[in-house]
Amino acid sequence: MIKVSVVGGSGYTGAELLRLLAGHPEFEVVTVTSRTEAGRPLGEQYPNLLGRLPLTFSEVDIDLLAASDLVCFATPNGVAMELAPELLARGCRVVDLAADFRLRDAALWSQWYGQPHACPELLDQSVYGLPELNRSLLPDALLVACPGCYPTSVTLGLMPLLEAGLVETDSLIADVKSGVSGAGRGAKVNLLLCEAAENFKAYGVFGHRHHPEIAQTLAQVAGCGGDQVGLIFTPHLVPMIRGIHATLYGRLHSAAVGEDVQALYEARYEAEQFVQVLPAGSYPETRHVAGTNQCRVALHRDGERLIVLSVIDNLGKGAAGQAVQCMNLMCGLPEESGLSAIALLP
Amino acid sequence: MIKVSVVGGSGYTGAELLRLLAGHPEFEVVTVTSRTEAGRPLGEQYPNLLGRLPLTFSEVDIDLLAASDLVCFATPNGVAMELAPELLARGCRVVDLAADFRLRDAALWSQWYGQPHACPELLDQSVYGLPELNRSLLPDALLVACPGCYPTSVTLGLMPLLEAGLVETDSLIADVKSGVSGAGRGAKVNLLLCEAAENFKAYGVFGHRHHPEIAQTLAQVAGCGGDQVGLIFTPHLVPMIRGIHATLYGRLHSAAVGEDVQALYEARYEAEQFVQVLPAGSYPETRHVAGTNQCRVALHRDGERLIVLSVIDNLGKGAAGQAVQCMNLMCGLPEESGLSAIALLP
Amino acid sequence: MIKVSVVGGSGYTGAELLRLLAGHPEFEVVTVTSRTEAGRPLGEQYPNLLGRLPLTFSEVDIDLLAASDLVCFATPNGVAMELAPELLARGCRVVDLAADFRLRDAALWSQWYGQPHACPELLDQSVYGLPELNRSLLPDALLVACPGCYPTSVTLGLMPLLEAGLVETDSLIADVKSGVSGAGRGAKVNLLLCEAAENFKAYGVFGHRHHPEIAQTLAQVAGCGGDQVGLIFTPHLVPMIRGIHATLYGRLHSAAVGEDVQALYEARYEAEQFVQVLPAGSYPETRHVAGTNQCRVALHRDGERLIVLSVIDNLGKGAAGQAVQCMNLMCGLPEESGLSAIALLP
Amino acid sequence: MIKVSVVGGSGYTGAELLRLLAGHPEFEVVTVTSRTEAGRPLGEQYPNLLGRLPLTFSEVDIDLLAASDLVCFATPNGVAMELAPELLARGCRVVDLAADFRLRDAALWSQWYGQPHACPELLDQSVYGLPELNRSLLPDALLVACPGCYPTSVTLGLMPLLEAGLVETDSLIADVKSGVSGAGRGAKVNLLLCEAAENFKAYGVFGHRHHPEIAQTLAQVAGCGGDQVGLIFTPHLVPMIRGIHATLYGRLHSAAVGEDVQALYEARYEAEQFVQVLPAGSYPETRHVAGTNQCRVALHRDGERLIVLSVIDNLGKGAAGQAVQCMNLMCGLPEESGLSAIALLP
Repeated sequence: MIKVSVVGGSGYTGAELLRLLAGHPEFEVVTVTSRTEAGRPLGEQYPNLLGRLPLTFSEVDIDLLAASDLVCFATPNGVAMELAPELLARGCRVVDLAADFRLRDAALWSQWYGQPHACPELLDQSVYGLPELNRSLLPDALLVACPGCYPTSVTLGLMPLLEAGLVETDSLIADVKSGVSGAGRGAKVNLLLCEAAENFKAYGVFGHRHHPEIAQTLAQVAGCGGDQVGLIFTPHLVPMIRGIHATLYGRLHSAAVGEDVQALYEARYEAEQFVQVLPAGSYPETRHVAGTNQCRVALHRDGERLIVLSVIDNLGKGAAGQAVQCMNLMCGLPEESGLSAIALLP
Repeated sequence: MIKVSVVGGSGYTGAELLRLLAGHPEFEVVTVTSRTEAGRPLGEQYPNLLGRLPLTFSEVDIDLLAASDLVCFATPNGVAMELAPELLARGCRVVDLAADFRLRDAALWSQWYGQPHACPELLDQSVYGLPELNRSLLPDALLVACPGCYPTSVTLGLMPLLEAGLVETDSLIADVKSGVSGAGRGAKVNLLLCEAAENFKAYGVFGHRHHPEIAQTLAQVAGCGGDQVGLIFTPHLVPMIRGIHATLYGRLHSAAVGEDVQALYEARYEAEQFVQVLPAGSYPETRHVAGTNQCRVALHRDGERLIVLSVIDNLGKGAAGQAVQCMNLMCGLPEESGLSAIALLP
Repeated sequence: MIKVSVVGGSGYTGAELLRLLAGHPEFEVVTVTSRTEAGRPLGEQYPNLLGRLPLTFSEVDIDLLAASDLVCFATPNGVAMELAPELLARGCRVVDLAADFRLRDAALWSQWYGQPHACPELLDQSVYGLPELNRSLLPDALLVACPGCYPTSVTLGLMPLLEAGLVETDSLIADVKSGVSGAGRGAKVNLLLCEAAENFKAYGVFGHRHHPEIAQTLAQVAGCGGDQVGLIFTPHLVPMIRGIHATLYGRLHSAAVGEDVQALYEARYEAEQFVQVLPAGSYPETRHVAGTNQCRVALHRDGERLIVLSVIDNLGKGAAGQAVQCMNLMCGLPEESGLSAIALLP
Repeated sequence: MIKVSVVGGSGYTGAELLRLLAGHPEFEVVTVTSRTEAGRPLGEQYPNLLGRLPLTFSEVDIDLLAASDLVCFATPNGVAMELAPELLARGCRVVDLAADFRLRDAALWSQWYGQPHACPELLDQSVYGLPELNRSLLPDALLVACPGCYPTSVTLGLMPLLEAGLVETDSLIADVKSGVSGAGRGAKVNLLLCEAAENFKAYGVFGHRHHPEIAQTLAQVAGCGGDQVGLIFTPHLVPMIRGIHATLYGRLHSAAVGEDVQALYEARYEAEQFVQVLPAGSYPETRHVAGTNQCRVALHRDGERLIVLSVIDNLGKGAAGQAVQCMNLMCGLPEESGLSAIALLP
């Protein structure tokens, strides 16, 4: 068994990671840390794990963590960067589910996350953990930055178009809707059932931290500079627990109007186990991927105007599922190990 | 216009009270206090009131409050009792929507609320604000203790039976289910949408603060001692915003098996505007009273075994609606003033 | 009292209309018809109206209806056009909450609604019942076509921009999200709680019947041909009961970049009682208008890119509320009569 | 692989059974029938199974079914009894998830299900598929009647008490709350999201079909006649998709007041993999067992009064999960095969 530690296991991303690891055939969770829950059995914080992962939360202890093969950070932003250098130096491989290593540009990171970056020299070494984009880099990766949930849904939805250079990059729109679990487990009034149920609203327009991450990735995919990607990104809060639905708007270059975009998507994702291209004109539903590591994509087209619908589970393919997928690749395991759950219906 | 102040207007009970007062033809809200929101316009805290109640939250100021005819407390337990004596001394009438004046026995209050009572001498003067029980006392009441939400649903459901002495009082069971707004607006993890939606659970079994209040009222109604009411009260949390559904179990005395209980209920509540007895065998639904001051009751009977179903809106007839009903009676207004809203459907 | 009949009162639009009329000071509901519910008391179908509107559903009877001053149709599409000519001939005024008289072009109507139009000659006489656009026509209107819910949210969101000619009309996008009640009360599997809760999906992309209606109205507002409005309209289903949230994307003409769009909106809607322009950068929430006739609009701008957020209650300002607003204007009543409800919070 | 057919796979019980079988290591689904969906790929009806169970719905064909080792019925009541005799005659083993073989008494069955029983001679042969009660009978069972969802939650909650004879059997109360999926996938108005969300109600008081089933099982467990079990059973509808919460009220015999009931429960269920006894005074939550085959039980006691809280997933341990557990036992497989999923959190 491969030894895995989880730092910061008391939020939703940590909870989902522990759930997946508890059912994984090759990974063994040896340590779970939480500053707020240290000393408490996991099963008290996460009753779903009762009897399945008989561990107790520990304080963060670098020696303890360093005894693992892999250390996963499911912490608030800014924690992984404090510990990663030493863990890497001691031979651990590090998987960060937060944002510390997602942006290549330390100055940009500081601007969006409001603090200096603790180890900018590691940014170039980190692999952006989107296997559909960077699969070849993962087997040797020492430091993996798992993508954010919104960036995963948007990137997988637009990647084939941008790789093929078919779409105008200066007028992309990502109107994205997320379940409430994307906002975390913090006790905030606006996330109470009585405030968030039976309601729909936008938030973070022109100012969400996932914007620069999306722009960076789309520019990489399109082979252009980040400032050439004129993306509008509008997040919304949906009164449900899990799921992201990205509604993506693009305009084909006039020269590309003859292209069979559906065929392009099907070819691009044919070998991907976790991306399913639905028949043209379909409507993917978030519930059909909830609890799984799948992304489902469907295309709607009217002349040069293209709408791509992309759904994931924000905690699955948008966070913990994707992390496990990366870890499988890092360790030479079958990519789908521990990720074969089927969504509940209903 | 009758001048009303609201102390502690930043919780859900306060919000509902302000909403009702904003639409009331005879009451004018002159002051709303909140320690945490002082200085903020009401419309920021409660966007539903935007443009309808152009006030700003104030700090608590006894002189300001004393300029009102009525002062309502929508505060945490233990606040009203600190201010009520002086307000009464200055000629204000006081309506407490919290628990400070509900129990007659100061020692019992201290035991359940964990602090000494600040003005036990007022307990005897206070009127328990259930108009269907104490209507005649309200016109002259100076201090009104509005009942809790659970006690309202249970009392109105059992009152005709107990008044008529038809039911065994030592084996009553109240299995009661409440929407999440009953737990207030505090930012607690267990009340997050992600924790409370798609879930059902009991809580507070054998230990809920509404238990002694229910026992006291039922004993009064039944004309016996509180220790003679052998009520089991089991509260549950329902994944919805508003509503209480009480499922009440009683056993008729063998001598009472011949009684027409349905007719008894219909007669008892015939003159009540806010209690509707549905046809025998009906199923009242919480949504049909949401946003209103109504209570709906239905009876199911099999021999000596009787099930009473009783629904209210916990914030309406269970709190702010009932307070306004009491205030109407205190001020000689039509009992239904400002309380004629019809529930949304759907 | 002005006599009003409601044809087809057994769906959600009819239910909301009846709820509003039951609380209206000047309208008296004299007849409510329903083919499926004829003979049943209203209170059985709509328990929220129990004791408030003591009527019984009737069969459709043209003589009965013709005795009313106003006849409202809350029927499926295609019913009003069969009865309207005779009712108008008999001197009734007709208010259609369905789609029969919304499109000016009978051929276009037939194409989208799949049947020939029964009285194309009335299309030119009908007034499109958006008071903020056509207020002056309503006092004399004999036949009013109440706008669809999506068109209302989109039109009110974009109208000031289009009237002022500030925005490119060939690249507008309306990404709109609706609560489930917009789909009506028909027993369909996809609308079951178990299918629609905890889920988010798009539907009707490039093919929703509200598209030609929106295009027609926007073109009128912009003073151009309908084919010049290059709108993409993408509807989505939100797991909640009531509410529409339109996220509207436009690009300012380069010559218009210097304009103060916020001031433009505030001026345009200053005199409107039912449209509130929130401070720039705000996030309107559907719950704050649920159960009301309000529309709330907020602007977000980044250079020439503009995002307008617009929320309404699909059954309120998007259907029955707007119908009552029109009827008030038709009858010379204060525009807000019977429409002063404040949204519940929570 | 053991060949399994599913008759009537288009409802929720069938959907859950197919989901479990698709992930089961030893069962192979060879045929799925549905009158309404014949010819359609499973993945269209159940998009969660897309790519996981590449089958097409068939018409019912007894020859096709007879080629299986096990035939499961996830049909409406009354279907399995028509086909079971021939399937058994041909050597298939039959597992019925509907009610056809649950009651021992054919006359009682006819009375509650409104039709004569087609094969009363099989009732004595059928094994009531509650492994915690009848484990020893399952390895040789040819015909298994899987318990209803409500009976499972109630029986597991009360079984230790009744087996030990500690409780008065004439005054048991089961106040039970179920998610909406328990009502099936039929398109009924009262199950629409707009009718069932934000609402709570009781139904079926003194008349639910699960009542005689519960009474029969409790009497068997208690070793008395069914008419000696004076159970009141009150079902309620909770606005959530999955889950049952039984709140069970009992009174200990005066001679039993000294018993350690908590220890009794812990001992009774110690060897059970799918029943977890929580610490005394706990509150089991339905979400913690959703999607699993677990039952969680907690005891609350005040003198001779006892409250047992019992939660299951109505489609899991209450239907399809329990069926798979039975099938594992019938086939000599590990009891937990294919049943190791951990509930999502959140």
